[in-house]
Amino acid sequence: MNGRMFTFVAGHRGPWRIERVDVVAGEPLPPATHIDIVNELLPDLPESASWFVRGVTSNERYVTRDERASLRANQPALGRADALCAALIPIRKSAAWWDLAQDQRRALLEEQSAHIRIGMEYLPAVARRLHHSRDLGEPFDFVTWFEFSPEHATSFDRLVGRLRASAEWTYVDREVDIRLVREIPVG
Amino acid sequence: MNGRMFTFVAGHRGPWRIERVDVVAGEPLPPATHIDIVNELLPDLPESASWFVRGVTSNERYVTRDERASLRANQPALGRADALCAALIPIRKSAAWWDLAQDQRRALLEEQSAHIRIGMEYLPAVARRLHHSRDLGEPFDFVTWFEFSPEHATSFDRLVGRLRASAEWTYVDREVDIRLVREIPVG
Repeated sequence: MNGRMFTFVAGHRGPWRIERVDVVAGEPLPPATHIDIVNELLPDLPESASWFVRGVTSNERYVTRDERASLRANQPALGRADALCAALIPIRKSAAWWDLAQDQRRALLEEQSAHIRIGMEYLPAVARRLHHSRDLGEPFDFVTWFEFSPEHATSFDRLVGRLRASAEWTYVDREVDIRLVREIPVG
Repeated sequence: MNGRMFTFVAGHRGPWRIERVDVVAGEPLPPATHIDIVNELLPDLPESASWFVRGVTSNERYVTRDERASLRANQPALGRADALCAALIPIRKSAAWWDLAQDQRRALLEEQSAHIRIGMEYLPAVARRLHHSRDLGEPFDFVTWFEFSPEHATSFDRLVGRLRASAEWTYVDREVDIRLVREIPVG
C-alpha cells in the first residue's frame, strides 16, 4: 500500500456532513450522515460505518502534455480555508466503455464531450482529486472528490450538469452525487 | 476482488519450474524453484513461499482500435498443450515515465519504440497476459506472463532483446526475467 490510497468512510462521524444525496444512475448507497477520509486502503468496513468507497490516485489516462500544463497552472490544492463545500461522486462506466480502445475512449472523453475543456472553465474555483477504483475490484470505477466555496456551489451544479449531458456520460451506468459541508475546520 | 486478479507465488511448488533468472535491472528477487499461479489477489505471502508478485488484468492503455483488431485476430490463448515454456517478467518504470502525459507515453511506447508492432511479429507464437500492479501498491508496475513452445524460445529471446533496446526501456528501472518450464500438463 502507499500514500496514493484513499478510503471514504460514510457513517455518523467525520469532518464532512452529508447535506444531499442524488442517485443519478443505478443503485443507491445506504444512508449516512457524515464522511471521513482516510489516506489508506482500509481492508474492511469499520464497525458502525454504513458504507465505504476506495480508490487510488494514479497517472493521468487521457490528458495530453499541453492540457496537463494548463491544468497544473490553474488547479488549486484541496484543503483551502474557504472551501466549505464538497462533492463525493463515485461513478461506474459500462462494459462497453471499457471495451473501447484507448483512442476511442480519448475521442469520446475530449473531442466529443470536452470533459477536460469544460473542467478547466471551473478552475481555480473547484479543486478536484480523482481516485481510480476499478482495478481494485471496487463496485465503482472512479471516485472523485471536489472542494469549493459556498459561492461556487451553483457553478459546480452547472459543471456536473454539462458533463452529464455529454456523449461520454452515455457510458455511465451508476453514479451517486453526495454533497457535503465541512463542520470541522482544516488543520 | 474479481476474476481479473492474479498472484504469482514463488516457492518450492507449482506447475512451473524455474529454469533461469536474469536480473535485467534493479534489485533481484529471493531464490525459488517453482511458480504457482493463483487467480485471486492473495493478501499475504503463503507460508513457505519465497516471494509473490500480484497484478490485475485491465483495459488497454495505449493500443488504438486498429491495433487492437490486429492483436485480437492474432493473439493466442494461454494454456496451449505445446506451450511448455513460459516467462514471468515483472518490471517497474521510473517516476519520470509516470510523470509523462498520456500522449507522451503513447509516442514513446509505439511511435518511437514500436512496442506493439514488434510484439505483433511474434504472434501467434507467443501468448501473453499483462497484469497491472502499480495502483495496487506493489513493488513492480507490471507483471507479464508469456507462454510459447520450446521451438520458439530463441525467437522469444529476440523479442525481449529488441524491446530492451528501445527508447521506452530507458524508463525501466527494475526488471527480472524468469524463465520456466511446465512440469504438470494443462487440464
